[in-house]
Amino acid sequence: MAIALSVKQALSSSSMIRKMFEEGAELKKKYGKVFDFSIGNPDLQPPPAFHRVFEELAADDARGKSPGSHGYMPNAGYGDVREALAKKASAEQGCRVPPSHIVMAAGAAGGLNVVCKSILNRGDEVLVSTPYFMEYKSYVSNHGGVLVEVPALRNFNLDIGAFEKALSGKTAAVIINSPHNPTGIVYPQSDIAALAELLRKHGEKTGRYPYLVADEPYREIAYGVTVPPVLCAYENSIVVTSYSKSLSLPGERIGYIALSPGAGDAEELLAALIYATRVLGFVNAPALMQRIVARLTGEKVAVDVYKKRRDTFMKVLDAAGIEYIEPQGAFYLFCKVPAQTQPGADGGAADDDSAAGDDKAFSECLKKRLILGVPGSGFRAPGWIRFAYCVDENHIASSAGAFKEAAADWRAASPV
Amino acid sequence: MAIALSVKQALSSSSMIRKMFEEGAELKKKYGKVFDFSIGNPDLQPPPAFHRVFEELAADDARGKSPGSHGYMPNAGYGDVREALAKKASAEQGCRVPPSHIVMAAGAAGGLNVVCKSILNRGDEVLVSTPYFMEYKSYVSNHGGVLVEVPALRNFNLDIGAFEKALSGKTAAVIINSPHNPTGIVYPQSDIAALAELLRKHGEKTGRYPYLVADEPYREIAYGVTVPPVLCAYENSIVVTSYSKSLSLPGERIGYIALSPGAGDAEELLAALIYATRVLGFVNAPALMQRIVARLTGEKVAVDVYKKRRDTFMKVLDAAGIEYIEPQGAFYLFCKVPAQTQPGADGGAADDDSAAGDDKAFSECLKKRLILGVPGSGFRAPGWIRFAYCVDENHIASSAGAFKEAAADWRAASPV
Repeated sequence: MAIALSVKQALSSSSMIRKMFEEGAELKKKYGKVFDFSIGNPDLQPPPAFHRVFEELAADDARGKSPGSHGYMPNAGYGDVREALAKKASAEQGCRVPPSHIVMAAGAAGGLNVVCKSILNRGDEVLVSTPYFMEYKSYVSNHGGVLVEVPALRNFNLDIGAFEKALSGKTAAVIINSPHNPTGIVYPQSDIAALAELLRKHGEKTGRYPYLVADEPYREIAYGVTVPPVLCAYENSIVVTSYSKSLSLPGERIGYIALSPGAGDAEELLAALIYATRVLGFVNAPALMQRIVARLTGEKVAVDVYKKRRDTFMKVLDAAGIEYIEPQGAFYLFCKVPAQTQPGADGGAADDDSAAGDDKAFSECLKKRLILGVPGSGFRAPGWIRFAYCVDENHIASSAGAFKEAAADWRAASPV
Repeated sequence: MAIALSVKQALSSSSMIRKMFEEGAELKKKYGKVFDFSIGNPDLQPPPAFHRVFEELAADDARGKSPGSHGYMPNAGYGDVREALAKKASAEQGCRVPPSHIVMAAGAAGGLNVVCKSILNRGDEVLVSTPYFMEYKSYVSNHGGVLVEVPALRNFNLDIGAFEKALSGKTAAVIINSPHNPTGIVYPQSDIAALAELLRKHGEKTGRYPYLVADEPYREIAYGVTVPPVLCAYENSIVVTSYSKSLSLPGERIGYIALSPGAGDAEELLAALIYATRVLGFVNAPALMQRIVARLTGEKVAVDVYKKRRDTFMKVLDAAGIEYIEPQGAFYLFCKVPAQTQPGADGGAADDDSAAGDDKAFSECLKKRLILGVPGSGFRAPGWIRFAYCVDENHIASSAGAFKEAAADWRAASPV
């Protein structure tokens, strides 16, 4: 018996995040309490309105008020649901998105696969700024494409010059993700505008306008900043999003794809998205959750709770002398592996990328103090480490001692 | 802007069933009442126990009794859900299926894509008996495989000799579907045993044992026959099923994959199935529906209602002089396009496949009497037409006159 070779290869270099998950479970079993900041599984409960609507729909169902509500519907989703979400997308994106430009999806992961299936020919390239959520690589290769990594600027913003160099006749799309996993940064409007301008120019020159695919599951988890819109900034843009974070429903697999009102050949692309939804086996986004999220367009989880956790976590890291990127959204803190060389001995080395600390070794060092994070290598950013703060604030606060000790252990040890 | 070429081609030869769906909607708008037997969208309500469990879970949720129940879980599904379904699968399949051999899926369509992704290398072949549910072709080609059609016997049972000829070193799998769409037949145990024997011999000879993939969404919709088990009949078999028909939940996308306890390299294949579930963007089967179906393992829709409809439909067809395959399961009647040649003029031509009636023309003729079915060409069986009877029994009974008139129209017309 044999499995597919590509899958065999992928399994042998299996996801670092999953490995952390398993090791975390073992440590927990052994020591009871572990500071597990490895997995981005939102722990906040859905907002009260979710429970209310859920109960109402269940009651309607039991009273026979909604016959057929678990049956097939058009592959793109219910008409009224698409209408409600088109209004929401229009408000967020600053331009009128018609309901026909919304295709319901089984979460953002489902939506991204649908987009890739719809637009990629064998060998087509998709550009992404590093570091990035490495599942993108699979989503693209599933459908015959090749993910091309474009290094970010040192502040992790988009390096437009690097994108310019990476563009080619094979470029089918660029994926961006803002608020960003793993750094928590939000791309400024000027980055989006510059990227749009670049893609437009590339299209004029080559006749092929790459799609700009914005993966936006964290749009609603932002701290005092508005996430700049994408659909109104570039004609051939596609937003893919989910309710996994904004309503804490990751297990329910519900989200949607929104196509820019200005997209060329929109009708054909929409037909392709709907076809891909069908034949990839999604068929349609789960019926009940479609009906629920359509009634909750004004709701989201308690974002201020995430913000307070972020603030607490930053204090913990400050106290341990660990540098980080201040997150403007999502629920991740991206930290620089501290330097091990003595100050003065090799002055300023810690600021030099070539001397990036060993993130896997630092992660092992943290583990000895029962702290779990994901090494930046898992996002193509060696020398960094990601901590997810979708855990209780007290838990974060109580990790302060462990962080200080781990950082001291690390500094005391010789560089590997 | 451009969509993928493969999708462009698929769209231009778009699904016949979908086309019927749209035409049906137009006819309904125009004439009010239409005898629409085109789509297999189960109209029976889920059993009362479904509504009860649904309401209970919603109430638990509202009272904060199930925190995290909409969050991520292992990609294979909840442990207790897999345990409950392993028991169910064991009872149905006549051998002990361990919980680790169950992977929850987003319906059978999702499950089949996960299986194809897991086992197919580029150019691998998957055999299927014609006629068949034509989405299989997409599920296989999505993952680089090629679907190879193997003509059935005249009674639509498996032609083991034809399978023997079609097997090659490239054969990765055989898909079977019983009860069968579009014919409603149930393969006898002897067919399954003979196919298993053939695959075993092929494996011994070539070193590659093809997987036997049984698509079983209709297993519980059978009339007085037990659908023979597959998992205990062949070591390298995989059952893919859903609750779309047995609980009438097609919109909710819930089902599972069960791997034979005897499968070689089971651990590796299970890891591949779980990996494919993740990277294809399903991530996991919808959480809430997993919890619901695990509590409903003894429940199903009112199958006797489907049986009565089948009986009524057979009488309608008998009265119109239309021949059909008597269905033992599912909710489809597969009918032979009546002969147009005068009896005596070309005696017996109607029994000769080469003289198969034109199913598309017959479908147009039926449409004039406001009857909608799907031409057999849509399943690679020209000369036949499929009627779905997941509609009210009175509606079926009241179509008798229209069927008689259409059949008379057809016989009176000259062959095209």
